[in-house]
Amino acid sequence: MLLYIYIVAITAEAMSGALAAGRRNMDMFGVAFVAFITALGGGTVRDMLLGNYPVSWTQHPMYIHITILAGLFTMVVARYMHRLHSIFLVLDAMGLIAFTVIGCNVALKLEYSTTVVIMAGITTGIFGGILRDLLCNRTPMVLRKELYASVSLLVAILYLCLRHWGVSHDINLLVSFGFGLALRIAAIRWRWSLPVFTYAPGRWS
Amino acid sequence: MLLYIYIVAITAEAMSGALAAGRRNMDMFGVAFVAFITALGGGTVRDMLLGNYPVSWTQHPMYIHITILAGLFTMVVARYMHRLHSIFLVLDAMGLIAFTVIGCNVALKLEYSTTVVIMAGITTGIFGGILRDLLCNRTPMVLRKELYASVSLLVAILYLCLRHWGVSHDINLLVSFGFGLALRIAAIRWRWSLPVFTYAPGRWS
Amino acid sequence: MLLYIYIVAITAEAMSGALAAGRRNMDMFGVAFVAFITALGGGTVRDMLLGNYPVSWTQHPMYIHITILAGLFTMVVARYMHRLHSIFLVLDAMGLIAFTVIGCNVALKLEYSTTVVIMAGITTGIFGGILRDLLCNRTPMVLRKELYASVSLLVAILYLCLRHWGVSHDINLLVSFGFGLALRIAAIRWRWSLPVFTYAPGRWS
Repeated sequence: MLLYIYIVAITAEAMSGALAAGRRNMDMFGVAFVAFITALGGGTVRDMLLGNYPVSWTQHPMYIHITILAGLFTMVVARYMHRLHSIFLVLDAMGLIAFTVIGCNVALKLEYSTTVVIMAGITTGIFGGILRDLLCNRTPMVLRKELYASVSLLVAILYLCLRHWGVSHDINLLVSFGFGLALRIAAIRWRWSLPVFTYAPGRWS
Repeated sequence: MLLYIYIVAITAEAMSGALAAGRRNMDMFGVAFVAFITALGGGTVRDMLLGNYPVSWTQHPMYIHITILAGLFTMVVARYMHRLHSIFLVLDAMGLIAFTVIGCNVALKLEYSTTVVIMAGITTGIFGGILRDLLCNRTPMVLRKELYASVSLLVAILYLCLRHWGVSHDINLLVSFGFGLALRIAAIRWRWSLPVFTYAPGRWS
Repeated sequence: MLLYIYIVAITAEAMSGALAAGRRNMDMFGVAFVAFITALGGGTVRDMLLGNYPVSWTQHPMYIHITILAGLFTMVVARYMHRLHSIFLVLDAMGLIAFTVIGCNVALKLEYSTTVVIMAGITTGIFGGILRDLLCNRTPMVLRKELYASVSLLVAILYLCLRHWGVSHDINLLVSFGFGLALRIAAIRWRWSLPVFTYAPGRWS
């Protein structure tokens, strides 16, 4: 079940990467490259941070092919994508949650402490988008936009609490996804956001 | 002793990260995230380069908490920070030196060659600031500004020479810190800088 | 033989890094740093992705010295470099091909699957240039320019096919270099390029 959601997730993330590459007029190679890194970069950074070798996508070439094809496919269908706007946002939110839960599980298996497990979940969830924005030379959206990274944080905490309280894994997944999706959609719908820190003057750093 | 300086150092670096995030109008999450990466990113890159797993902060959740809290705290006190300008610069310089010495020691323990030990010291000293600037979409300061990275380089060399000559560790630390602080403060005071390379024309690369 | 080409390659890449740093008015330290990362960053990212520790340049301090000296040397000769434009492009292309072949071989030795071997070749070939452009705050050239990354991709595929068909290593190298050089030079000469993806509207991602 989580596997199917994961494949939908990397497809959605790859498409978001391809669109960002398109805004920078990249060529086909650049589009495929950014799609790949957006979709699989978060998990890669997590594995490299945790020393979890071999890095997961190196053992599943299929994931590489899916993300590259999704990226190239986006070049063709981009002009129709505004019609699918809402569906895409839901898939993207599902990806965020799936990545977060998977990231937590990898760190749990390696017996890292709770804080690190949460960091691993967030890293998996948001770092692909951060790398996408770095490659496209813009300030990472996820550090500025409406509740996005925070959804990842709260889902990670909820998932670990339910797990700690002995809730069965299936129910835990269901509750975590329900909560995360509802929160993310509500955040988009009513434009919820965290306080923004604006710092203007000063000469240093 | 080095531990206390280290904690002061990551606090100062986290605050410099938070201020940079504030210049990009990031939200609370972004501020905490950039603070964390600025403070602990240098050591992380060093550990990943040297294959020094587990990465050090994953074994010390307290460091994670300190940097995140320091980042959020900065949002509150930012308006008063210009008054603390000079103190902050000294703390930042102490951080640079502490990071450099710690980075050298990690590579020494893993028995890397001298050149690599120096690179490890510099990486620990300056890479947090480089990642901060990448996340905030600006050309890294430390590669342009007055003597900063060079202080890290010279401190690393001095520290290794004294160590090679059999100077006791405490005296070595004292001399290295004294030299580094004096050099950095003098560089700020009299605007010392390295020759700048300006290349304008040409079409390639 | 491949070793000599490799040394020419890291020198050429270091010089391209130094020139990019010069466009951002970096100081001597920044120039040396960007030169080092441009030349050795691709191999570093590959080693970190594949878990191939120790990272190769940490075992060959000479490579570090070469790239730093090449970077500093570029500050002196930059004004004359436009006369060497064509030679430089050929050296840069040889570097791209040498890096690609070396990257493939590292992944082959670690017994990764074919897709990952190709990714390792491309990563070694182009990631130094990507890191250079990130440090210089611009959208990576290799994801936008005329056939460059694609040359790396095609060379990797050709090299693996010939290897698979039992062609001797020397002839394989000769053919791969011949093909890659010819393709790259033709691409520059006649401005061949891949289709570009331009995406303008939309609010998401």
